[in-house]
Amino acid sequence: MIKLDKTLSKDVSMELFEFGDNILLKHHIKNANEIKPFLEVNHKFWLNLCGLENDHLLKEISELFAIHPLTLEDIKNTSQRPKFEEFDENIFVVAKMIYHKNKAHGPITEQVSILFGKNYIISIQENPYDIFDPIRTRLENPVGKMRKMGTDYFAYTLLDAIVDKYFDCLENAVEKIETLEDQIISQSKKTKLPEIFQQRKTIQQIKRNVWPTRELLSAWKKSESPLIKKKTNPFINDVYEHVIEIIENLEIQRESISALVELFMSNLSLKQNEVMKTLTIIATIFIPLTFIAGVYGMNFQFMPELGWKYGYLFIWILFLGSTLAMVYYFKRKKWF
Amino acid sequence: MIKLDKTLSKDVSMELFEFGDNILLKHHIKNANEIKPFLEVNHKFWLNLCGLENDHLLKEISELFAIHPLTLEDIKNTSQRPKFEEFDENIFVVAKMIYHKNKAHGPITEQVSILFGKNYIISIQENPYDIFDPIRTRLENPVGKMRKMGTDYFAYTLLDAIVDKYFDCLENAVEKIETLEDQIISQSKKTKLPEIFQQRKTIQQIKRNVWPTRELLSAWKKSESPLIKKKTNPFINDVYEHVIEIIENLEIQRESISALVELFMSNLSLKQNEVMKTLTIIATIFIPLTFIAGVYGMNFQFMPELGWKYGYLFIWILFLGSTLAMVYYFKRKKWF
Amino acid sequence: MIKLDKTLSKDVSMELFEFGDNILLKHHIKNANEIKPFLEVNHKFWLNLCGLENDHLLKEISELFAIHPLTLEDIKNTSQRPKFEEFDENIFVVAKMIYHKNKAHGPITEQVSILFGKNYIISIQENPYDIFDPIRTRLENPVGKMRKMGTDYFAYTLLDAIVDKYFDCLENAVEKIETLEDQIISQSKKTKLPEIFQQRKTIQQIKRNVWPTRELLSAWKKSESPLIKKKTNPFINDVYEHVIEIIENLEIQRESISALVELFMSNLSLKQNEVMKTLTIIATIFIPLTFIAGVYGMNFQFMPELGWKYGYLFIWILFLGSTLAMVYYFKRKKWF
Amino acid sequence: MIKLDKTLSKDVSMELFEFGDNILLKHHIKNANEIKPFLEVNHKFWLNLCGLENDHLLKEISELFAIHPLTLEDIKNTSQRPKFEEFDENIFVVAKMIYHKNKAHGPITEQVSILFGKNYIISIQENPYDIFDPIRTRLENPVGKMRKMGTDYFAYTLLDAIVDKYFDCLENAVEKIETLEDQIISQSKKTKLPEIFQQRKTIQQIKRNVWPTRELLSAWKKSESPLIKKKTNPFINDVYEHVIEIIENLEIQRESISALVELFMSNLSLKQNEVMKTLTIIATIFIPLTFIAGVYGMNFQFMPELGWKYGYLFIWILFLGSTLAMVYYFKRKKWF
Amino acid sequence: MIKLDKTLSKDVSMELFEFGDNILLKHHIKNANEIKPFLEVNHKFWLNLCGLENDHLLKEISELFAIHPLTLEDIKNTSQRPKFEEFDENIFVVAKMIYHKNKAHGPITEQVSILFGKNYIISIQENPYDIFDPIRTRLENPVGKMRKMGTDYFAYTLLDAIVDKYFDCLENAVEKIETLEDQIISQSKKTKLPEIFQQRKTIQQIKRNVWPTRELLSAWKKSESPLIKKKTNPFINDVYEHVIEIIENLEIQRESISALVELFMSNLSLKQNEVMKTLTIIATIFIPLTFIAGVYGMNFQFMPELGWKYGYLFIWILFLGSTLAMVYYFKRKKWF
Repeated sequence: MIKLDKTLSKDVSMELFEFGDNILLKHHIKNANEIKPFLEVNHKFWLNLCGLENDHLLKEISELFAIHPLTLEDIKNTSQRPKFEEFDENIFVVAKMIYHKNKAHGPITEQVSILFGKNYIISIQENPYDIFDPIRTRLENPVGKMRKMGTDYFAYTLLDAIVDKYFDCLENAVEKIETLEDQIISQSKKTKLPEIFQQRKTIQQIKRNVWPTRELLSAWKKSESPLIKKKTNPFINDVYEHVIEIIENLEIQRESISALVELFMSNLSLKQNEVMKTLTIIATIFIPLTFIAGVYGMNFQFMPELGWKYGYLFIWILFLGSTLAMVYYFKRKKWF
Repeated sequence: MIKLDKTLSKDVSMELFEFGDNILLKHHIKNANEIKPFLEVNHKFWLNLCGLENDHLLKEISELFAIHPLTLEDIKNTSQRPKFEEFDENIFVVAKMIYHKNKAHGPITEQVSILFGKNYIISIQENPYDIFDPIRTRLENPVGKMRKMGTDYFAYTLLDAIVDKYFDCLENAVEKIETLEDQIISQSKKTKLPEIFQQRKTIQQIKRNVWPTRELLSAWKKSESPLIKKKTNPFINDVYEHVIEIIENLEIQRESISALVELFMSNLSLKQNEVMKTLTIIATIFIPLTFIAGVYGMNFQFMPELGWKYGYLFIWILFLGSTLAMVYYFKRKKWF
Repeated sequence: MIKLDKTLSKDVSMELFEFGDNILLKHHIKNANEIKPFLEVNHKFWLNLCGLENDHLLKEISELFAIHPLTLEDIKNTSQRPKFEEFDENIFVVAKMIYHKNKAHGPITEQVSILFGKNYIISIQENPYDIFDPIRTRLENPVGKMRKMGTDYFAYTLLDAIVDKYFDCLENAVEKIETLEDQIISQSKKTKLPEIFQQRKTIQQIKRNVWPTRELLSAWKKSESPLIKKKTNPFINDVYEHVIEIIENLEIQRESISALVELFMSNLSLKQNEVMKTLTIIATIFIPLTFIAGVYGMNFQFMPELGWKYGYLFIWILFLGSTLAMVYYFKRKKWF
Repeated sequence: MIKLDKTLSKDVSMELFEFGDNILLKHHIKNANEIKPFLEVNHKFWLNLCGLENDHLLKEISELFAIHPLTLEDIKNTSQRPKFEEFDENIFVVAKMIYHKNKAHGPITEQVSILFGKNYIISIQENPYDIFDPIRTRLENPVGKMRKMGTDYFAYTLLDAIVDKYFDCLENAVEKIETLEDQIISQSKKTKLPEIFQQRKTIQQIKRNVWPTRELLSAWKKSESPLIKKKTNPFINDVYEHVIEIIENLEIQRESISALVELFMSNLSLKQNEVMKTLTIIATIFIPLTFIAGVYGMNFQFMPELGWKYGYLFIWILFLGSTLAMVYYFKRKKWF
Repeated sequence: MIKLDKTLSKDVSMELFEFGDNILLKHHIKNANEIKPFLEVNHKFWLNLCGLENDHLLKEISELFAIHPLTLEDIKNTSQRPKFEEFDENIFVVAKMIYHKNKAHGPITEQVSILFGKNYIISIQENPYDIFDPIRTRLENPVGKMRKMGTDYFAYTLLDAIVDKYFDCLENAVEKIETLEDQIISQSKKTKLPEIFQQRKTIQQIKRNVWPTRELLSAWKKSESPLIKKKTNPFINDVYEHVIEIIENLEIQRESISALVELFMSNLSLKQNEVMKTLTIIATIFIPLTFIAGVYGMNFQFMPELGWKYGYLFIWILFLGSTLAMVYYFKRKKWF
């Protein structure tokens, strides 16, 4: 599947930000050779690559930055679990971003690989989604921390932007769950089960990505690599706390959904009970009456009651009495 | 969102208690500059701030007490998880208080940030709720521990007041759950499911706040900061035990609620079974009888039974016999 | 709430056993002053106090034995969690005893606080229940271990007596659960759900007390206090194992109860299915027949069948044929 | 309950195997005194005691082998949890064997206590069951390991024989569960719930015994007693792995049973749904028809339709049309 | 069961690959003696044995490579749990491969034992399945890692091939689960429960094998054997991560299946509710009407209504009015 053309395919785009305390230059890069010179200048740079289709390019980059073949495979394999790996020269992080293209559908998961060394940060996205826009904005600020602090701080800001997206997705799900809850408690008519199950799937999808992200951050916190400076710690702690908060919220939402399903099912049972009662009351009252009417509709030649003067009146008294007795019985049984 | 007016907005109020072994002075403070002089006197002071709307004020205070920008953000972000953080000069605690504004509704959660240094305690509430009234009372007592012991003891009393509120909420929930239980066992008529689910939510809400409070206290217990004196330990242990007790109680209540839902549903099934039996008994007895009556209501010209002298009598014997057979059958099946 | 009268209230009783290798003296004590002399003699003594109503007395005792104010609060607060606390001069244990006043009702939980120092053991009960009778008996035995071994062994025997009561309660619950199981499997008629839930509550109540008792014993085992002698270890291990056994049994009972509820509900479903089948069979057979009878009960002037000689015979053949067809259909569907 | 007669009761039997590299002698022992000489010879010996009724004998043996009074109690208390205890002179193991006396019933649990010192192994069974037959056979083999290796290896073989019995019971349960599964999937008629619950109980019974057996073996593996030789380790590891395998299998069976109950209940729901549909279809078709027939069975003097020539024909067309409409409606609703 | 014929049985086949940097020779081996010479040459070799029926051969091999008797038993016992065992001269690994012979049925589990020493790798399969074909292909590549790296790398490739098969099985199951999900949500008619349970079993079967595989790899990672070289670590980490990914996926699938069963059951309840409503509506409307018709079909001599001119008209108005009232009632109750 290796494409040998050295130009970028349509689906792959690269941008390189060269930056220092007093400088910010944006370069559009076409191939790996153009990156080489930046490795030797004094400034730091951020290379953002969108699209994994150009195998040749990825291979060249991996050679340029001495990336282990297994790491390259992790970058290409978009179902890679989030993880944190230290090497001698750089640190490699796989993260998953999650976002809604369309609020009506479930969220989309995409892989972001981050590699940072002493003076470079590389981020590799699957598609050119705008998740890093706020970072570009912050980078333009000449007095912000982005330019002054190390590449580890830069990598932190990327992770922070990714984790913020989890909050968005979670909030979206919470909102929908609360709407469903209101609908179920107020017992409006439509079936909502598939919608509940849709939200359960979303919660599960976030959970599936956020758990390994926690492990990733935990590994970062424990890391003793010289690339990770002590003063970045409070920031990583901060993201870590956000992730813990998301995890706890997911658990709460999971329980809410279970309670919702339970409530839905018990509402259904309550309604069915009511339906059964209605049927039973009507049937229990009228079936015996119909029988009595049937009796006096028989054509026997000798049926003395038929000739009685007050027979018909008497039969109506029987009908009404029987009905009242039944109604009293059901009242006492608290059926209505 | 930064308001530049240096006066307090309506929603923000500050009070400062200057205290020592023989002194207690209450000051009303309008801006951060008025606090500065207290930092240099020999007495300790407690600054209680209600309302987070005045960003400018918070910034000034954070500069005055050398608060880390991330800590300031934690103070402002009212969905911050409870936590314990040690710094060189002070200790920062985020706690959640929970209380009922109206017993008919669920409880309200509010954030309380506590920061204490060598001779000051700052508590920051979201709204001017009276949770710290008992502390003001205790502070007035010139021979109590409040004035004599260190700021860590003072912070403990604040936490203790907060944890006591959890007990109130829990007790309120337990009471309601027990009422529901009695109603369900005695099978009084009204639907109670949404009420049960309301209590489940309350339990969950307390749980969500009390678990990180446990972690907070656990971190305090392990802390080796010089600001935390050894003789405060038994007191912190005491709050810690209270929190454990609350956690265990929550678990028990959670199980009680599950059992309640189960009991409710099974009662419903039992009732439905009874309804079905009633219908079945009536229908099974009368449907065949109605059929027989229908047969002798037919207008065939040649129906010998119709002319029999005892035909009508015979048919009544058939009716009664069939009914008795059915009743016997149901008795044997233990249907009633 | 402090009562200033120095005499014991009706609800508080004290007894003091002075004992040594060759001596056993029982004293009735009225106030804390009478205890003082025993602290200085060579013998050990056991002070058993029933009732927590006399605040003044408790305060005097706590001064006599140098009890920390928080510990005193633990003694008075009868909802205190079981725990083990070491102090320099003595060891403080809170335990919960559980017993049946009346086998028909659920068990009652009561707090027992135990404090032992070098030559004294104090036990404080809520009510004068006879749980420590066997200990009094053993104490009378001049060659038993009770008199010879240290106060830690004495405290162990008190705990052992308490844990034995858990077994009694558990056995009582197991017995009732097994009776319920037999009743449900044999499907005798009465509703048993509230009884099952009663047993579930009992199991939960025991569990709630036995878990912290395990922690208590675990802390004792790890304790390095000079008050705890090495040769008491096997005995504490023994109680510990009993507690583990109770915990495992509780778990098994909890699962049994869940299985019972499930069995009960499925029996109910099976029965309901049977009821529905009966109704359906009767209705399905007779409703069409009734319709046919109804047809020939119509009063149209022109209904040729009514004049046929064998019309009536033919209609009976139709009735029987239709019935047989239905019966065959249900047989094939395995409905009966 | 101590019996003072020095002869063995009918329910107690003892056999003693004296063995060495080149020797195997079987002795029938009547009282503890007869054991004493073997303690001083060079050979090792295995004492197998069946029955716990003779308290006097057990006491004599416990004195002979310096058994701690609490250990003696563990031997006598047949509800003792499996455990591993090291003493200076010997090692004490309590295990539980489980076997089927009758495959139709659930398994029986019996306690086996094992005590081994430098040159003796004592095994104490509740009843003379033949679980150790294969060990007797292996012992007869002069070149086998049984005679050459130490008493720890001998104890291992006893445990191995016990654990093998767990496999038998488990397999028996698995077989029955699979039969039930087949019956439920093929939906044969009989109720199987109590049988499923019987198997659940068996699984629980095995689990209850096998878990502490795992702890026992784990303690053995960690033991540093000089009585346990390094070369026995692979064998103990082997039994340990078997126990882990049993535990994993039990968990799988537990899940299978839950799935079975769920499948059973859902099959029941499916069937009930079918019953309800049958009733509803019949009733919905015929109830309106019966009404129409009833209308034309009324005896009003002025009912024009009755005089129409084609009235009767028309009414049959109405009957058929209405029926077809209903059938079409149910078809569209996919009811049949 | 030992077969004494020295030739291979039909069910057992052996192939031996002798390989080095520049060499690859394939030998067909018939008995253990033919292997001996390879142990002394400088090249490494891989012996792949399919079939466990020839006990004699296995014994000879075990003697040749100094395999512990318990290890030989592990090889032969195909229900052995996956494990990792270090010996002085070699490392022994038991793995389980899982594959579909036929996609319509559940997967098949087979044991693969791997033993590797300094210059040999032995793999023993139950049946001659082609799982190692890709390895044969890679071995033919003279510049690949297979020939250059140590036997530990070779063992890794075997494990990797086995773990890849888990992914295949998992994907197959996921596909089927998603198909079932679509079918259930779209509510197509057929019963799918046994199919859901089939997938649950498959998930359980994979889980059962993949968990101990994780332990195996974890043990490998911690191993300090000289046979395991440091540069193989990243590769083992890679397989380990795959296994973690499979485990997480299994958990997700398990939850999906539970949700599916829940959805299926609630769909069933919804349908049953609809069926009940249909029946109730029809019965509630027509049963009272039929009664009225029955009343006027009675043959009393004195029934004034029958003689009224507009009696019949009036009765139809009654019929229609009653029907409309019922329909209005059901509408208001939101029954349709």
